[in-house]
Amino acid sequence: MSLIHELTLGDVLGEHRRGRPLDVAAVDGAVRLTYPALDARVNRLAGALAGAGVQRGERVLWLGQNSFRILELLLACGRLGAVLCPANWRQTSDELGFVLGDLEPKVVVWEESEAVAQARAESPVKAAWVQAGLEYEEFLAAHPDDEPSAPVDGGEPVLALYTAAFDGRPHAALLSHRALIAHAEALLHQREMRDGFAFLACGPMFHVGTTMFVLATFLLGGKNVFTPAYEPQEVCRLIDAESCTQAFLFGPMIDGLVAANADGEYDLSSLRFVAHSPAWDAMITVDDSPWCSSKMGGYGQTEVGGMLTFLGLAPGGAGPAGRAGTLAAIRLLDAAGREVPAGEVGEICARGWSVFSGYHNRPELNEAKFRGGWHHTGDLGRREPDGTLTFIGPKLRMIKSANENIYPAEVERALKSHPSIADAAVIGVPDERFGQTVKAVVVLAEGASETEESVIEHVRGEIASYKKPRHVAFVAEIPKKGYTPDYDALDAAHGGGNYPGSS
Amino acid sequence: MSLIHELTLGDVLGEHRRGRPLDVAAVDGAVRLTYPALDARVNRLAGALAGAGVQRGERVLWLGQNSFRILELLLACGRLGAVLCPANWRQTSDELGFVLGDLEPKVVVWEESEAVAQARAESPVKAAWVQAGLEYEEFLAAHPDDEPSAPVDGGEPVLALYTAAFDGRPHAALLSHRALIAHAEALLHQREMRDGFAFLACGPMFHVGTTMFVLATFLLGGKNVFTPAYEPQEVCRLIDAESCTQAFLFGPMIDGLVAANADGEYDLSSLRFVAHSPAWDAMITVDDSPWCSSKMGGYGQTEVGGMLTFLGLAPGGAGPAGRAGTLAAIRLLDAAGREVPAGEVGEICARGWSVFSGYHNRPELNEAKFRGGWHHTGDLGRREPDGTLTFIGPKLRMIKSANENIYPAEVERALKSHPSIADAAVIGVPDERFGQTVKAVVVLAEGASETEESVIEHVRGEIASYKKPRHVAFVAEIPKKGYTPDYDALDAAHGGGNYPGSS
Repeated sequence: MSLIHELTLGDVLGEHRRGRPLDVAAVDGAVRLTYPALDARVNRLAGALAGAGVQRGERVLWLGQNSFRILELLLACGRLGAVLCPANWRQTSDELGFVLGDLEPKVVVWEESEAVAQARAESPVKAAWVQAGLEYEEFLAAHPDDEPSAPVDGGEPVLALYTAAFDGRPHAALLSHRALIAHAEALLHQREMRDGFAFLACGPMFHVGTTMFVLATFLLGGKNVFTPAYEPQEVCRLIDAESCTQAFLFGPMIDGLVAANADGEYDLSSLRFVAHSPAWDAMITVDDSPWCSSKMGGYGQTEVGGMLTFLGLAPGGAGPAGRAGTLAAIRLLDAAGREVPAGEVGEICARGWSVFSGYHNRPELNEAKFRGGWHHTGDLGRREPDGTLTFIGPKLRMIKSANENIYPAEVERALKSHPSIADAAVIGVPDERFGQTVKAVVVLAEGASETEESVIEHVRGEIASYKKPRHVAFVAEIPKKGYTPDYDALDAAHGGGNYPGSS
Repeated sequence: MSLIHELTLGDVLGEHRRGRPLDVAAVDGAVRLTYPALDARVNRLAGALAGAGVQRGERVLWLGQNSFRILELLLACGRLGAVLCPANWRQTSDELGFVLGDLEPKVVVWEESEAVAQARAESPVKAAWVQAGLEYEEFLAAHPDDEPSAPVDGGEPVLALYTAAFDGRPHAALLSHRALIAHAEALLHQREMRDGFAFLACGPMFHVGTTMFVLATFLLGGKNVFTPAYEPQEVCRLIDAESCTQAFLFGPMIDGLVAANADGEYDLSSLRFVAHSPAWDAMITVDDSPWCSSKMGGYGQTEVGGMLTFLGLAPGGAGPAGRAGTLAAIRLLDAAGREVPAGEVGEICARGWSVFSGYHNRPELNEAKFRGGWHHTGDLGRREPDGTLTFIGPKLRMIKSANENIYPAEVERALKSHPSIADAAVIGVPDERFGQTVKAVVVLAEGASETEESVIEHVRGEIASYKKPRHVAFVAEIPKKGYTPDYDALDAAHGGGNYPGSS
């Protein structure tokens, strides 16, 4: 793309510095940055990162809770043509070690945590480690606020998000400036985000669901409010104090806010959001934008920047996933790459401006994902007679618990690492509160003896706690289809169900 | 851009064929096409154009009133990597001859007109001439509806619109698939266009103001209603019959509709549009989208796909042109390409996704327009303290006095703000001490009486003192070239000269 048509995250920030000199870009605790102040810090940070060896294409890793520093680091990486990866901070030291080795970051910015300290001590990867807080401030203070002068190609990646652990380990999806800006623009439209929009980032920023709204708010020149994690009382306080228009919220989180604000201490009327319950609807301003007027969203995944389809483009449509966003095209393909007719199930494949650039360091997987010029999502779907899409489910199974994606393969890997466990398979069982919870079906090694508690405890030590089984069934044998567990048989025998897309 | 990230107008049509099999894409008199029907006709038309010698990069010319065929031809050219130019049909045969010679189209689709017939007879350009109507239907009917298989680069031009006759003859601004889609997406956001949007194209489609909404409606998968030209009674009838959400309308056109519907014969309540007068507001649904809630629009030109700034991004802002659209960046540059500080006047320069690809067949002009990686709009602007933009006027000439740059448009704007001044133009006259000084040529309003001193004093109160005229000539009329003062004639009559660069 020629220079005259280029637009990077840095260009957006440069425009806001000029066009919104008085507007607040970021709020986080006592930190309050206007767009010019953010721009100056981003330039200092870019200088500091370059000084630490971060060049075009290199990676910077964030290991911590939500922070305005994630936005700063992303924009600073953007100015250098480098990539920021905000990773899940609550992973085990083994998982963190995998990320370090896979990503090979030049700089790691981290918040105090035992697992992070252990991963750092054990990792052979050489990186500059900068602790968020004073050390971080000193790191950037030493550099001038001149904008780096080398031009950046908007087609190059700037954000990496780990996802898709379908084969046991996650892969870092790379998203370019162009993909992030295009997706943000589509959100501006669907969410009808207007001048003055303020977003409260109370969901985890290593997840695209929160980050896509931070980026849309940034593209608009709005205000992003960061809070380390979802804490109901504090979320209520921030919505009130900062007049937030939206926050990252769904079912159980909303119930938490209703309970925390039962006495009406906080004024939440600035929030223009989805109807949920009479008490909630009375606290907020129920919004009728296409994003908010039905069940939120549509179908998406990290690899398309967030959303691929929108319900708001198909009100009253037959397919519960809506229609393709305006900057994307979809084909439902069979295993041979041929389009399946309407009404038949095929793999959801996508092309367009917001599609990712592949996974970091996975050339073979990327070739397979992008075969025939279409991104293969790994999910199955069907076109209804009115052209709307129904999401059928992952080609490989996925469990969705409290809005987190859990891949059976990853939990199975953790289970099998226990010396007493000879074989294991994982299913999702319906759960009233979380949608699904994880159930492990386990074959013990000859002579071994374990309890439900000891198995769960083992997994908790291996992977992030939210992925651990809540239930364990001990069996003599796992039914198989070829080399893989026969999940349908397991579901039937052990009460599996409520998988994403199955409703 | 890699195939996986590509999105052309043809891809958008292909998606709508699948995602909106039942939805109406285009209405024009008795013609009523669903998206699949439009897609089939576009493919036949692409085959017919290719058969007539239209290859990648070649031009097709439309000479006629508004018609669904303009959309069909644009999409068919898009499928071939070719360019459609819908040109002003009401030009003289001399002007039409210039367009034919400049554009060298392979195919001309035309509607009966004396001037067109004369231009055809006189032009040495060899093209296939296809008359809209039966001949056009036969032209496309002979070809199958298979989609052309050669991939199209979304960065290549697909639409040409004649504009910018600043040197006496117009230039054809080339807009790529990418620019048109990006601009349309920005309009979807600002206009808050929702599923079911229906646009009535009652303004001329050789002008970007109408065409940009046709394209946004197409991108959304909405319904475009075409009518040959603005005719108040017919426009009312179509809004009612087709439940149009918007039409291309402004002040006097709106008054025409109010008069035509004085007896309330037509139900115009489907129209969600700008407030205008009590009678109008009672007929329609007054809309509060950012586009409609203030004076419509912002600052724009054909060369940026339509709008460069939006008022809806700066409600209550100081600068009446608003802020840059979210997919563009703006710089105010001086003659040397340096950014001017906020509060000072510079040329409005732009970069971003919707910027045009240059003028057809004007390599030298394009090089000048794109110097330094910024599109030079030829217009002057100023950043206000809140970052919003004020549009000053076109930069045709520059006066240099005591080393200061003075743009006539800015001084003229100040002069015309005086209630006694009906018209004004500003020239530079040689000055021994300062190089040049400013001379105002003024037409007083009927019955008004002013002195040289009172006029100078007024300007001094409006803009920086060094820009005020030192001399004032009172005249009965300002000579014009089109809409702008004829500065050469003014210089000759009033002693102008010694302009920078004129040596």
